[in-house]
Amino acid sequence: MPAAVDVGELVERARRGQPRAIARLLSLVEDGHPQLREIAAALTPHTGHARVIGLTGPPGVGKSTSTSMLVSALRRAGRRVGVLAVDPSSPFSGGALLGDRIRMTEHAVDAGVFIRSMATRGHLGGLSVATPQALRVLDGAGFDDVLIETVGVGQSEIDIVRLADTTVLLLAPGMGDGVQAAKAGVLEVADVFVVNKADRDGADATVRELRQAVAFGHREAGGPPWRQPIVRTVASRGEGAGDVLRALDEHAEWLADSGESRRRRAARAVGEIEAIALHRLRGELAGVGGGRLTELAERVVDRAVDPFTAADELLTNLHTT
Amino acid sequence: MPAAVDVGELVERARRGQPRAIARLLSLVEDGHPQLREIAAALTPHTGHARVIGLTGPPGVGKSTSTSMLVSALRRAGRRVGVLAVDPSSPFSGGALLGDRIRMTEHAVDAGVFIRSMATRGHLGGLSVATPQALRVLDGAGFDDVLIETVGVGQSEIDIVRLADTTVLLLAPGMGDGVQAAKAGVLEVADVFVVNKADRDGADATVRELRQAVAFGHREAGGPPWRQPIVRTVASRGEGAGDVLRALDEHAEWLADSGESRRRRAARAVGEIEAIALHRLRGELAGVGGGRLTELAERVVDRAVDPFTAADELLTNLHTT
Repeated sequence: MPAAVDVGELVERARRGQPRAIARLLSLVEDGHPQLREIAAALTPHTGHARVIGLTGPPGVGKSTSTSMLVSALRRAGRRVGVLAVDPSSPFSGGALLGDRIRMTEHAVDAGVFIRSMATRGHLGGLSVATPQALRVLDGAGFDDVLIETVGVGQSEIDIVRLADTTVLLLAPGMGDGVQAAKAGVLEVADVFVVNKADRDGADATVRELRQAVAFGHREAGGPPWRQPIVRTVASRGEGAGDVLRALDEHAEWLADSGESRRRRAARAVGEIEAIALHRLRGELAGVGGGRLTELAERVVDRAVDPFTAADELLTNLHTT
Repeated sequence: MPAAVDVGELVERARRGQPRAIARLLSLVEDGHPQLREIAAALTPHTGHARVIGLTGPPGVGKSTSTSMLVSALRRAGRRVGVLAVDPSSPFSGGALLGDRIRMTEHAVDAGVFIRSMATRGHLGGLSVATPQALRVLDGAGFDDVLIETVGVGQSEIDIVRLADTTVLLLAPGMGDGVQAAKAGVLEVADVFVVNKADRDGADATVRELRQAVAFGHREAGGPPWRQPIVRTVASRGEGAGDVLRALDEHAEWLADSGESRRRRAARAVGEIEAIALHRLRGELAGVGGGRLTELAERVVDRAVDPFTAADELLTNLHTT
């Protein structure tokens, strides 16, 4: 049994910007601490102000350098910035070499920046439960912008992108298969395109390709349409940061004017409630049916029963408790 | 209401190797046809014979070319081969340019090969429900080997890799972030490493890096340990195909001798039963709580309630029905 936490005090300290209190809250929500819901309840009245920006793109486009550039630009604009790195290839999360982490150390001593790396495994209930909670902590702690960095290839990553108010898709010239990978589902959720490494050969072709893809892309239903801008950057030299910020601000304005902002936040809440409910049901399945599940699995392996019938039997146990 | 299907006849035709019957069964299970469980029950007695091989690796390593090479080699060995492409960057699935699909057309007229592309979105219950069902169809149809191709970056992709008896991780020299991305979770589940494009500069370094990572890697608990081999290939020229097949056969032997085969299939069954049960519970949530969920989400957006309390209310509805 974990020790009881003074949630009210912790939230108060986080709201005063104390990094240790913020880090502690993030650990508590990620680990599914027994006081998780008390924490959520204490944070909720202070939330709803942060702008959530999703940064996504295939490995190799310079996501971490772009994140770093964006953090610097937002800081210069006087905004407090939180970063959630849920990209397995990010230097901020577990997957990368230690040396790469150094790129972000320029922000390490800035109290207006908080960076959190979220491993893609081991969270109670998975990232679909943990990420919205982490977002709530940073929002409640008063950050103006929260950047979520994710690799943008794969289903769960796209689900995370859907948490954002504004999604930025990063691409780079000459990515070959990488660009194709990004196209398979992320193009349709992206609000702003950034072609990084724009000083390289092939940048014009990438922009052209994107423009064509966008032309065939979907439009928001109802309200004035949003035309996804394509911004060029050279993040390693900080070039284009101002253009990215401008695109983000224009999208924020459009979100507010069109009513899309509220629609997106409601969709996010639906996803979060569902994830929590399903996580709890999964816990009940494991509790009620744990031993039974192992036994049923053995019978499925022996082809004595098909998995649908096995699932039936498992649910019968659940519903009669 | 979809038209009723003569399941027995369809399964019989699939077992005689008729591609149209196999394709129809795959569509039915992917779409969650009302007769889904009847199909599963009819297939189950004929399953358990296929060797399931997962092929994974970051975009750009030559996964599709390697898959094609492996299909050719297995065909030369007289084996019938099914391919499930769940890689959004694969030429066989939705994400890629039409032109790339041509790479696989050499197998298009071979009745001993069946290739199926699975979109990463839009499946009832997601890939965690659809992929094991598709696997059951190909297994039940009598394919000796089923290759599952996936990009191997991201949580849901790793879950799919766990369906395999043997997992092959493909890498290539000079992938930079790509190799790092692959490291974050897939290294630990890989049974065989393939360094493709081994004629390029940096191949030795990639092999060395891998050898080091493997030395620090985990060992199977109990039984004789499995030492992951590292095979070099140049898939575009078909070089190394024999070495890959040999590694696969050795691993199959080890699986059988160590008892690990049964353990993996039981774990797969646990995952499948859980996915089906959770999918059904999700359906109940939507049915019982559909309108209620929208209403609760609005209250969460207004910060009138936190999502945990909202989930409670949703589940109360479910449990009292």
